[in-house]
Amino acid sequence: MKALVYHGPGQRGWDTVDDPTIIDPTDAVVRIDTSTICGTDLHILKGDVPETVPGTILGHEAVGTVVEVGAGVSTVSPGDRVLMSCVSACGRCRFCKEARYGQCLGGGGWIFGHLINGLQAEYARVPFADNSVYKVPEQLSNEQVLFLADILPTSYEVGVLNGKVSPGDVVAIVGAGPIGLAAILTAKLYTPGRIVAIDLADSRLEVARRFGADDTINNSRDDAVAAVMELTDGLGADVAFEAVGVPQTFELATELIRAGGHVANIGVHGHSATLHLEKLWIRDVTITTGLVDTFSIPPLLRLIASGRLDPSLFVTHRLALDDTMAAYDTFADATKTNALKVVLQGTESHGLQTAGAEMLVAL
Amino acid sequence: MKALVYHGPGQRGWDTVDDPTIIDPTDAVVRIDTSTICGTDLHILKGDVPETVPGTILGHEAVGTVVEVGAGVSTVSPGDRVLMSCVSACGRCRFCKEARYGQCLGGGGWIFGHLINGLQAEYARVPFADNSVYKVPEQLSNEQVLFLADILPTSYEVGVLNGKVSPGDVVAIVGAGPIGLAAILTAKLYTPGRIVAIDLADSRLEVARRFGADDTINNSRDDAVAAVMELTDGLGADVAFEAVGVPQTFELATELIRAGGHVANIGVHGHSATLHLEKLWIRDVTITTGLVDTFSIPPLLRLIASGRLDPSLFVTHRLALDDTMAAYDTFADATKTNALKVVLQGTESHGLQTAGAEMLVAL
Amino acid sequence: MKALVYHGPGQRGWDTVDDPTIIDPTDAVVRIDTSTICGTDLHILKGDVPETVPGTILGHEAVGTVVEVGAGVSTVSPGDRVLMSCVSACGRCRFCKEARYGQCLGGGGWIFGHLINGLQAEYARVPFADNSVYKVPEQLSNEQVLFLADILPTSYEVGVLNGKVSPGDVVAIVGAGPIGLAAILTAKLYTPGRIVAIDLADSRLEVARRFGADDTINNSRDDAVAAVMELTDGLGADVAFEAVGVPQTFELATELIRAGGHVANIGVHGHSATLHLEKLWIRDVTITTGLVDTFSIPPLLRLIASGRLDPSLFVTHRLALDDTMAAYDTFADATKTNALKVVLQGTESHGLQTAGAEMLVAL
Amino acid sequence: MKALVYHGPGQRGWDTVDDPTIIDPTDAVVRIDTSTICGTDLHILKGDVPETVPGTILGHEAVGTVVEVGAGVSTVSPGDRVLMSCVSACGRCRFCKEARYGQCLGGGGWIFGHLINGLQAEYARVPFADNSVYKVPEQLSNEQVLFLADILPTSYEVGVLNGKVSPGDVVAIVGAGPIGLAAILTAKLYTPGRIVAIDLADSRLEVARRFGADDTINNSRDDAVAAVMELTDGLGADVAFEAVGVPQTFELATELIRAGGHVANIGVHGHSATLHLEKLWIRDVTITTGLVDTFSIPPLLRLIASGRLDPSLFVTHRLALDDTMAAYDTFADATKTNALKVVLQGTESHGLQTAGAEMLVAL
Repeated sequence: MKALVYHGPGQRGWDTVDDPTIIDPTDAVVRIDTSTICGTDLHILKGDVPETVPGTILGHEAVGTVVEVGAGVSTVSPGDRVLMSCVSACGRCRFCKEARYGQCLGGGGWIFGHLINGLQAEYARVPFADNSVYKVPEQLSNEQVLFLADILPTSYEVGVLNGKVSPGDVVAIVGAGPIGLAAILTAKLYTPGRIVAIDLADSRLEVARRFGADDTINNSRDDAVAAVMELTDGLGADVAFEAVGVPQTFELATELIRAGGHVANIGVHGHSATLHLEKLWIRDVTITTGLVDTFSIPPLLRLIASGRLDPSLFVTHRLALDDTMAAYDTFADATKTNALKVVLQGTESHGLQTAGAEMLVAL
Repeated sequence: MKALVYHGPGQRGWDTVDDPTIIDPTDAVVRIDTSTICGTDLHILKGDVPETVPGTILGHEAVGTVVEVGAGVSTVSPGDRVLMSCVSACGRCRFCKEARYGQCLGGGGWIFGHLINGLQAEYARVPFADNSVYKVPEQLSNEQVLFLADILPTSYEVGVLNGKVSPGDVVAIVGAGPIGLAAILTAKLYTPGRIVAIDLADSRLEVARRFGADDTINNSRDDAVAAVMELTDGLGADVAFEAVGVPQTFELATELIRAGGHVANIGVHGHSATLHLEKLWIRDVTITTGLVDTFSIPPLLRLIASGRLDPSLFVTHRLALDDTMAAYDTFADATKTNALKVVLQGTESHGLQTAGAEMLVAL
Repeated sequence: MKALVYHGPGQRGWDTVDDPTIIDPTDAVVRIDTSTICGTDLHILKGDVPETVPGTILGHEAVGTVVEVGAGVSTVSPGDRVLMSCVSACGRCRFCKEARYGQCLGGGGWIFGHLINGLQAEYARVPFADNSVYKVPEQLSNEQVLFLADILPTSYEVGVLNGKVSPGDVVAIVGAGPIGLAAILTAKLYTPGRIVAIDLADSRLEVARRFGADDTINNSRDDAVAAVMELTDGLGADVAFEAVGVPQTFELATELIRAGGHVANIGVHGHSATLHLEKLWIRDVTITTGLVDTFSIPPLLRLIASGRLDPSLFVTHRLALDDTMAAYDTFADATKTNALKVVLQGTESHGLQTAGAEMLVAL
Repeated sequence: MKALVYHGPGQRGWDTVDDPTIIDPTDAVVRIDTSTICGTDLHILKGDVPETVPGTILGHEAVGTVVEVGAGVSTVSPGDRVLMSCVSACGRCRFCKEARYGQCLGGGGWIFGHLINGLQAEYARVPFADNSVYKVPEQLSNEQVLFLADILPTSYEVGVLNGKVSPGDVVAIVGAGPIGLAAILTAKLYTPGRIVAIDLADSRLEVARRFGADDTINNSRDDAVAAVMELTDGLGADVAFEAVGVPQTFELATELIRAGGHVANIGVHGHSATLHLEKLWIRDVTITTGLVDTFSIPPLLRLIASGRLDPSLFVTHRLALDDTMAAYDTFADATKTNALKVVLQGTESHGLQTAGAEMLVAL
């Protein structure tokens, strides 16, 4: 089969590799019908994730069709159309029993395209299939559910739920890239009073408005703390999300929060930040971090089915699975291409919404 | 001044009475600019609430202007436009310290138009003013905030919050009168997957759809339990609200709930119900009851200000304060008049939205 | 092998039956080393549980040694000493993913000695072994962990946790049989200010004091509601547990609760109760029901290991497994024998604490 | 009257000053019968708290007798014996309505001995008396309730409740000074499986054992992280308290926590700390900070009354109120004197437990 293979820092190929097979009785083999690329894939390609060894197939977000299951799999069968979670769950360890699948001690967690072969391929081996895939309702297209694999539950669980967004809250989102946008989209499920997006780029802030931000602050020009204080009678935001992954944005989030507020870190960090305890010790703040568990896939799926959550705004480009190499180029050059998410479609991509030579969609 | 006075079962008058004065240092006197009538007022008039003695001015929902404050009042001043909560809070007792104002042990709780003179009058004495009134933001009209006095926080706190509505839930609402409609409106703040309204009257179910119900079941014709089970793969609703106040509707709510679900009783009951513990003991259900505390007025006010909660759907009729007697006739005959809430407007009613001879608004 | 077999209402035998074998790949076969009898077993014997068919081996509480595992079992191996939960968990269904194992939709739930053969036998087939058994730490005896199979998690989860017992609370426990006593023991983990036990029998109340009740009320003589009000400045108990299973005790629990309090039903009911909504609608009460999930076995196990939870008070009698018939007689005649829990010990019962001809222990 | 007056960094006197009087109608004047000294008082004396101006009477922990109340005070009267909270509450602002009194926006918060005159004096003016003092039950001595003014609620609210200690948890407490010891005492209300105290001094660790620590680690000698990992099968502690107030101890707390665990900062910090987001972003940790609100005084008072919380272990020294200067010397030299809390007793100190020339109590 064909697959996107990591060959060490800066190097990738659309290679012919062996088809995957069942190894453990809890495995399934799935044909990948629709897939996408994540910012984390780019990090791996830069060499920032040393535990991913050259030769690994990348990708951890896909929808596909089960073609084979191991003897221990009882809830899915060949022919089932399934969404694969970016996080695998053994279902038996202490953390899985608390629905904290991202911390699985039994061999799961974030393994696809990281510790084992991933989902940017024609086929994939899916461990712990019973606890790690979700059947897709007939009426939904692959593309409609694709972002439930990672980005939507990430922003919802690690941002919205950890941050305890409540109706009427002022929510400040530091960073308006895809993760920040998903945070806007899923924060709206709790009807905040005001969503404030903060970013260095006007173009991203404009997209944030389209996703539902009520106010935008360009902190390359304006003092974000002062602006948030003005919007909140000097108290600060009820909830702040860090959605970038650098020390400055985290520190900003802790400055614009009100006493008693919640700072939810969603970003992936490579460096430590400064925590101003000399100011914060007295302010009753709660700071959370987290890896997605994807326990929220079922309710989010129901909301997509009922039309109350619409992830289609994310789709800026659609390409054929065979064009995965080009898709990486498009996605990596987001400043020019305005790419948010690039959908990769196999030949049997259920719910293919457009087809033909020209598949690029302008934002 | 003029006021709507209860004269014993079935008897009321728009009487000339003494103007109220400050009695306790924590009192304010407020000019009533906008008021309304509640189903509970009708219950009192029927004689169902024996602790309300003849001679009492009725009404517990109003917006007005402070004209005088006692020596112990520090947060509002003459001239302030304020929303009065239907529940007064001493602010010092055990329950007030837990924001459980409805259970106030210090002389508060639901007292307006019940144990002391109420708000369907030209002026009213407002006890515990610091903890019981809310300043109205400049940009909002009286009518926009009026329903925060009772019906919206009641359905939100006693229904939505007690019932722990979460994004994606199936919420069943038994009863589509004003309280059930307010439950639909405020449940939407948590983006349920599906709102199912159940009532005996098609006309009310049609209104429920306008308020946001996704599905409606007329249980004079159809088996509501069977219908809910069909909508939920046989599991039952995640949350059910009882919004009528009779045993049958409560019992229905406990039948259509899923294992692990929440039944939130909002209705005011005069009789006991049968609790089928022989079925329910094993089903992990949570049943809650409650009187409103109105602690949710501030966030709901913010949502009205930001346009995310629109109570205007409730206003079916507008009359002058002097026409309170006619307003009672209209409200009491809801089956014919289709009245939901009747707005009573004084001569200085801020934000008067329509004026003139014809003030009746067709639904 | 030998096993205690139900032969229809009123009839049981210690019969020779076929040894159990692995049927599904997720099964284990376990040698039963220590077992016990539950009040529910007596209900089945009375014919109150029609879904239990004649020929079924009874019992759902045991500690044993794994002798064989199916191909899909990965966390336990032959030779492991394990506690079996009274509730089996498929680990894959919606409810299991929420740790609501008692409501398992995948073939688990309470099945032992109910829908499949149980644990009062020399050997047992244990379905879903990975998610339904718990390894016993070396330093603990079988008897120390035996009551984690059912009675302790039942009172803890369905009583203490559902009732949200908090430090300083007044906790009223209606019923001082084994379940009520387990509720006293596990409520103490949250350091209530006062535990009030209510029962009709002075002998049981005396035992309740030994388990930790601060106050006891014999409601065959005294007015329990008045007595609780006197202890609580007229407010009522913060939390009340129903631990009997009849309408009267449930209704009593709802009468002695304070506004804002929690009534946690633990008892198994065969009849409906009257819910006095005409009084309760305004009192902010929360009523919960539930079947045990046993998700609390790991923390309770740690507390037994650290000596902070001591279940040994329950053991009133110890008999050999071969004497299961006599053990039933002793347990069923608790009024005379004062039996709380009867421990049945196989020949290899780890941690056998006493041995010899005379195994009856006076309370 | 006499009072302990701050005269600028390093300078204090037991001076004759004017008696306090009622200023606002919500004030009370209280005769101080029993008082004590807090580590924060020493910080002020060092000049670390610039907003405390010379001339201020210090102290924020006392029990006394009401001698006069303002016109707006309704819940206490002259003659009442009352505990004064270290935090005053206006009872009317947004934060007071959420029981977040430490963040009071209406003139309260921590003001005693900080922004206004404090409680180490013969008399004190107590603002917002209705919401800031607590009547002492007859059967309890002043000394028994004295530590409810600050240290016990601080460790309980900011440590135990923020850290969500649950039965069976492993709780690590970094710092075994008075605040760390109070954290041990109040954590036990939730029956953790194991309490691990970490400190640089063996003498303090020995005291920690007396307060209830199960394990102690001297991190001047031993690797605390390695030691905690060994105690927890390599997972880390469920909850960690920072109870010192320096960057190193905070950072240690974040290193020894398990994935999904809670770090509750209790210490008062003068410097920023490093937050290792590059490790923590993926570990689902929750970090909280906070100033005490003292909302937990009522339940803790009930637990002292029922004998389930015993603060007497804190009392290492008792002196007469007139010896406040000497008491400061004793308290400030804790390394030599082993002082934990020094009780200052006026001539009418209710419940004086020992009297006579020699009042020093060996630990």
